[in-house]
Amino acid sequence: MSDAKLETLRAQVLDANRELARRGLAQFTFGNASAIDRASSRVVIKPSGVPYDQLTADNLVVTDLDGRIVAGELRPSSDLPTHLVLYRAFAAIGGIVHTHSHYATVWAQARREIPCFGTTHADYFHGPVPVTDVMAESDIGGEYEANTGHVIVRCMGTRDPLRMPAILVSGHASFCWGKDVASAVGTASVLEEIARMAYHTVALDADAEVISQALHDKHFLRKHGATAYYGQPDRT
Amino acid sequence: MSDAKLETLRAQVLDANRELARRGLAQFTFGNASAIDRASSRVVIKPSGVPYDQLTADNLVVTDLDGRIVAGELRPSSDLPTHLVLYRAFAAIGGIVHTHSHYATVWAQARREIPCFGTTHADYFHGPVPVTDVMAESDIGGEYEANTGHVIVRCMGTRDPLRMPAILVSGHASFCWGKDVASAVGTASVLEEIARMAYHTVALDADAEVISQALHDKHFLRKHGATAYYGQPDRT
Amino acid sequence: MSDAKLETLRAQVLDANRELARRGLAQFTFGNASAIDRASSRVVIKPSGVPYDQLTADNLVVTDLDGRIVAGELRPSSDLPTHLVLYRAFAAIGGIVHTHSHYATVWAQARREIPCFGTTHADYFHGPVPVTDVMAESDIGGEYEANTGHVIVRCMGTRDPLRMPAILVSGHASFCWGKDVASAVGTASVLEEIARMAYHTVALDADAEVISQALHDKHFLRKHGATAYYGQPDRT
Amino acid sequence: MSDAKLETLRAQVLDANRELARRGLAQFTFGNASAIDRASSRVVIKPSGVPYDQLTADNLVVTDLDGRIVAGELRPSSDLPTHLVLYRAFAAIGGIVHTHSHYATVWAQARREIPCFGTTHADYFHGPVPVTDVMAESDIGGEYEANTGHVIVRCMGTRDPLRMPAILVSGHASFCWGKDVASAVGTASVLEEIARMAYHTVALDADAEVISQALHDKHFLRKHGATAYYGQPDRT
Repeated sequence: MSDAKLETLRAQVLDANRELARRGLAQFTFGNASAIDRASSRVVIKPSGVPYDQLTADNLVVTDLDGRIVAGELRPSSDLPTHLVLYRAFAAIGGIVHTHSHYATVWAQARREIPCFGTTHADYFHGPVPVTDVMAESDIGGEYEANTGHVIVRCMGTRDPLRMPAILVSGHASFCWGKDVASAVGTASVLEEIARMAYHTVALDADAEVISQALHDKHFLRKHGATAYYGQPDRT
Repeated sequence: MSDAKLETLRAQVLDANRELARRGLAQFTFGNASAIDRASSRVVIKPSGVPYDQLTADNLVVTDLDGRIVAGELRPSSDLPTHLVLYRAFAAIGGIVHTHSHYATVWAQARREIPCFGTTHADYFHGPVPVTDVMAESDIGGEYEANTGHVIVRCMGTRDPLRMPAILVSGHASFCWGKDVASAVGTASVLEEIARMAYHTVALDADAEVISQALHDKHFLRKHGATAYYGQPDRT
Repeated sequence: MSDAKLETLRAQVLDANRELARRGLAQFTFGNASAIDRASSRVVIKPSGVPYDQLTADNLVVTDLDGRIVAGELRPSSDLPTHLVLYRAFAAIGGIVHTHSHYATVWAQARREIPCFGTTHADYFHGPVPVTDVMAESDIGGEYEANTGHVIVRCMGTRDPLRMPAILVSGHASFCWGKDVASAVGTASVLEEIARMAYHTVALDADAEVISQALHDKHFLRKHGATAYYGQPDRT
Repeated sequence: MSDAKLETLRAQVLDANRELARRGLAQFTFGNASAIDRASSRVVIKPSGVPYDQLTADNLVVTDLDGRIVAGELRPSSDLPTHLVLYRAFAAIGGIVHTHSHYATVWAQARREIPCFGTTHADYFHGPVPVTDVMAESDIGGEYEANTGHVIVRCMGTRDPLRMPAILVSGHASFCWGKDVASAVGTASVLEEIARMAYHTVALDADAEVISQALHDKHFLRKHGATAYYGQPDRT
């Protein structure tokens, strides 16, 4: 990996972590963002416990796919093993964001998937946003953070990670991903808003119905995939 | 249409779109505003998928009432056909705003009209804010965006669009309109607040009662119509 | 009334109206503040329908206690007759604020008094915040705004207006008052927060219990009245 | 206590009180922060009823552990006796914060402990956040503020105050503490967010289940105690 490429990746990860704080998705140190360079298998991630306003490109941590530190003076985020499991399982993704954003976390705490009640959701997620199983005591006692990754991968099953770029970990919070770390941050923002909309929809009507598959597909596919016509041709 | 008139209309539409973002009514690219010049049947609308802070008067799109592009390099908002159906059906309106503002969208997702629980609502909307039927699969598979307009027009029925300047599209979000695009933006702001008030009223008391027709009429008519006495004579 | 006194009163009313907007208590033109000079029976009030950022000391309206305009080019707030009824009924008050602040309005829409669930409420209001009867059709059809004042006065009954400086008008919103208009604004701010706290308390536990009269009295009286010991001696 | 040490403590207490306002934890004058110098038993606390933006290092009040004023022209916070009881009972703490922050107060008003529904809570509090008994009328009529401290101490029982650094006083609000006043402010911020998350979790699912003790311990202990591996070694 060239120095220039690494600098670009560091800049993207720095910006992504700061965006989490700026957009109100991560208070205190509740969240972290990483990105991977697939050619060299280098991962850049937030250091553990460092406030967002003290982050610099230099205090980010660079590791390989086994979590060995390649550069950086600080400990990486304690959630690094979760990120690594996801990078290994989902070859198409280039960035991951973990946040305890409010309403996404509320659904995770209630251990419920987020149903698709409207086109705002359908524009970004192809299906309900899944929630993992509760982790077994043996998974918690062992390699807890890596096991968090495994429970996510198991829950995703055969879903395409770019069509379902987010998941809720039961009793914990959300993980989002995308082709790069900036799009993972964007997904985390949208997830929070659709989680909040779904929360209020259920509160207004406990029996609210999800939208039809036809409407869900229409909205998802007019923005994504081969027949998309939303946005500008050079922007997709 | 003179160049000067077109410039004015572009400036109004630019400002309206930016206002949606400024007032928190449209996050990401969830929303669009348009205006029409009735003399020339020219419509100015937001380009599709362009962030609000990248909008300029020049990248707005100008079309005729059939959606043919008259000026502009970019694709128009994918919701253009909805706007056009509304401009054709409601001769008195000069501007349209579509947003996924939070609480209005929640009512749309719950597929419920917004009852008039207080004078804040009655000051702006003469009746409950209606919600459309769920769109049929055939409507979604066909000219979806134009059909969204048709379902709105059907739901409005014989209502006066200037006395009911907003509607909720089931499972989607709101459309608002007015004599010009600035008043459509104002209506979208008020709609969001009365949707939020109604939401909390129902949550506090599931059997909350609407206000009397006498009180509803009193408030609407002291602000609107021939006998209005609210505001200043030169401001109405 | 001397010119200097009038200028002071105008400045206070201007500041109070602006504070309503600044503190988020009045959106759009949903709210107005007034003050009275008891010696001359002059009332200074917001003009009707003028946005808060266009208010100046000069465009405020000065009237007598019968609502006759003494100074000012603009129409007074359409709620002026309500203010006048209150000034006549409650001799101890010097300022009034009307707002459609969100949670206070929600309780008014649900037609429920705000129970005292905690010491935050007890620090400011001696008893639950009352809600008026629904206005009769004959009251709405007649002198509506004056009748709004009468329904408030009737509901207050023998309560001391300085110990219960706020009321909810059913299906409408709140009125607050105090020894001067600045304290009425302060009360409107606190009312909104205790309305919001009470809303969430009831939502968390539909059978939530009010605090004991002993605790209610303790908190109210340590801040107000002869034996108060909260705050600084020269600040009460 | 040296002058330099006292100046440092004053600066910390000033900053802590201002932080309460800045972070939206204390509106109006609803809250106060104090710190203690254990060597000299000197307590620095906010003066009563003074707005946060008028606080200076000089108008803070310095007392001994019996509440006798050692320095300062103003009356101390009326809650001083509560702080003193806590400093005497919990030898490990160096700072205390009292706020009426919104959602923590809602739980206190509903008289319910905050269950641990997720890892956000477990990261900071080892167990549910307790709520005190309702105070007896005799406790209110007597030394009310000191008795508030006694009811807190009784409720804490054998809990380690650094593992459970917060409590809810029934019908009132929260008290938080920590090794110093800055960490007490941090705890008050986190408490508000976990109270808000738990509120929405219960609203989404009235039968929501708490996380397992294994997950609770894992998250608390990876951040706190001898085997902690979260954060940086030199950052605790």
